[in-house]
Amino acid sequence: MNRIEIVTAFSAVETAAMDAALEAALQGPRGANPLVGAVVIDAAGRQLVTGYHRGAGTPHAEADAITQAEAAGLDLSGCTMVITLEPCDHSGRTGPCTQAIIRAGITDVVYAVDDPHDPAAGGAATLRRAGVQVRSGLAAGESFELNRQWFLGVAAQRPFVTLHIAQTLDSRIAAEDGTSQWISSPESLADNHGLRRRIDAILVGTQTVLVDNPRLTARDASGATAGKQPLRAVMGLRDIPADAAVRGDDGNVLHLPTRDPREALSLLYAEGVRHVMVEGGSRILSSFLAAGLVDELIVYLAPTLLGSGTPALNGLGITTLADARHWDWDPSDGGAVLTLGRDLRLHLRPEPTEAFEPHLSRTAAEPAMGGY
Amino acid sequence: MNRIEIVTAFSAVETAAMDAALEAALQGPRGANPLVGAVVIDAAGRQLVTGYHRGAGTPHAEADAITQAEAAGLDLSGCTMVITLEPCDHSGRTGPCTQAIIRAGITDVVYAVDDPHDPAAGGAATLRRAGVQVRSGLAAGESFELNRQWFLGVAAQRPFVTLHIAQTLDSRIAAEDGTSQWISSPESLADNHGLRRRIDAILVGTQTVLVDNPRLTARDASGATAGKQPLRAVMGLRDIPADAAVRGDDGNVLHLPTRDPREALSLLYAEGVRHVMVEGGSRILSSFLAAGLVDELIVYLAPTLLGSGTPALNGLGITTLADARHWDWDPSDGGAVLTLGRDLRLHLRPEPTEAFEPHLSRTAAEPAMGGY
Repeated sequence: MNRIEIVTAFSAVETAAMDAALEAALQGPRGANPLVGAVVIDAAGRQLVTGYHRGAGTPHAEADAITQAEAAGLDLSGCTMVITLEPCDHSGRTGPCTQAIIRAGITDVVYAVDDPHDPAAGGAATLRRAGVQVRSGLAAGESFELNRQWFLGVAAQRPFVTLHIAQTLDSRIAAEDGTSQWISSPESLADNHGLRRRIDAILVGTQTVLVDNPRLTARDASGATAGKQPLRAVMGLRDIPADAAVRGDDGNVLHLPTRDPREALSLLYAEGVRHVMVEGGSRILSSFLAAGLVDELIVYLAPTLLGSGTPALNGLGITTLADARHWDWDPSDGGAVLTLGRDLRLHLRPEPTEAFEPHLSRTAAEPAMGGY
Repeated sequence: MNRIEIVTAFSAVETAAMDAALEAALQGPRGANPLVGAVVIDAAGRQLVTGYHRGAGTPHAEADAITQAEAAGLDLSGCTMVITLEPCDHSGRTGPCTQAIIRAGITDVVYAVDDPHDPAAGGAATLRRAGVQVRSGLAAGESFELNRQWFLGVAAQRPFVTLHIAQTLDSRIAAEDGTSQWISSPESLADNHGLRRRIDAILVGTQTVLVDNPRLTARDASGATAGKQPLRAVMGLRDIPADAAVRGDDGNVLHLPTRDPREALSLLYAEGVRHVMVEGGSRILSSFLAAGLVDELIVYLAPTLLGSGTPALNGLGITTLADARHWDWDPSDGGAVLTLGRDLRLHLRPEPTEAFEPHLSRTAAEPAMGGY
């Protein structure tokens, strides 16, 4: 199949379904897994079901769509599934999508871009061997753009990095006397604890441990630890005090003896961390931003002014406005701007700075990492 | 008429009309004049027309509603007008609303709160003399709250103060080398120039004149001065250089030889200024905020990070979080959060800090200032 064939092999119905799949994908959260949407169309071109991925540990978009069809008593045999990413062929926390597709009797699959993980034993090949007709490349550019930072992270073999800042309108994260509890609204705090349950690790600097002594657990409104707990990672050259709250009593804490954000990410990746949330303080936040290692930026903005105190950032090596880093508003996972009590939650992703193209056809250049 | 009578004299239809009038009022901009809405209901209780005030120099809400009725060929005779503020009785830039109401044949007027300007010759008395039945006090609390800062400014005989900050996400208004053109998007700049056309004066510090040398004119997209030009006021003890751009060639510039924001407002008020926009720099912005003299806060927030440079604010005298100043989101005039190109425009008003009650009945304690 050459490029010309790829471009011309899609119908208007499939193109419309891919648009719907891209739109659905945006409902999911960013992180260890990419945003993915899937739409099933029947022979008459009707969109029967639309699925999307709700984040690591939850069903993939394909499984979500098929489960919905089953619940609605819809027969998908002979149908076409249109997906924003190549279906997975591995059993991770969820079963392989290829098998679910084959079992559902779907005879045609159209997807946008290849899964970058597993070129040797990918989902497309498995589907073809089972007699499913597979085409790819539809809306490849849009689908890559949808998950640009995730593709970059996979290629670099580092975790997806979410940076979290809880600040005032004048970008202070603590007052002059160090008080910072709580700049954010209760609703923002609850949102942040929900995010903590979705990530693999939470990262702060030793300074934050020494000054604020946070627990870094995911807690519910009553203050009790709730749901999956992230690894608590502390980076910096100073020791973590023996009585620091971050130590907890579950052993789920890691000291990263480095000030280099790239090295910290390597150490976390080696621990199996695929999504890390960097919470502070100023020096840690600034070092990740200065290194261009932030994939997603979440700012809880309180309608409060302090005028002094600790600024969220303390230097990115930028001296003139022309070198300022720009960010794009991210409409995924609840939207670019969300009201949380009296606060706004701002959701952004880095503006593209480097050319990076997805693999539109398979190569053997990448290591097998087991799919997303 | 005593308080009990006021409270019980309103029908459900009038209450619903007042709710609609309050809602309509929010479409207008804040400034020299209050937000006002007016709804006309007929004998059957139907809401015929809804008017609101679009800011100084434009028709009042009552006139807006009556003009709409005339354009639609509606006869308002025998109708009731429900208004969030007492109708004016003076000829300012627009004719007196009392006469328009009488001419339209409206026989009943219900309003929320008295106009605080002119207790001796107010609109209610004029209407009553003309045989119009007038009742007041319906939704007085809501209507006062709607224009709380305006009432405070009128009582204090100072201009309404809009503070304008054009900043990055990390609240920088210039990079380390002083570059600041342009942190904001073209759409934010255009919005700001539209605001400049609506105000009486624009105020900066001498430092801003010396460093940025701004023109402070209201300009259109082509850069040409457009519309009504605000007085250009510069506060501070240093002289304005003879070749400063702010001097212009129209004589519409004023040096306020003070660093005290309260004194600057007194001087501007004496010049007839009823709405001033404070644009910068950090020291001026901070001094107005620290003095509690800001009625409206507009932040143009660019999705950009600098990490260093000039912070928007440089001290409010607040040392601990408990003393931080809170702001309420302001839904008026386009909303609390507006997208302007890549920027957000945030619109806020101070959280109430002091008890202040509107006059629900007339007193002779206040000077006649000619209505809003």
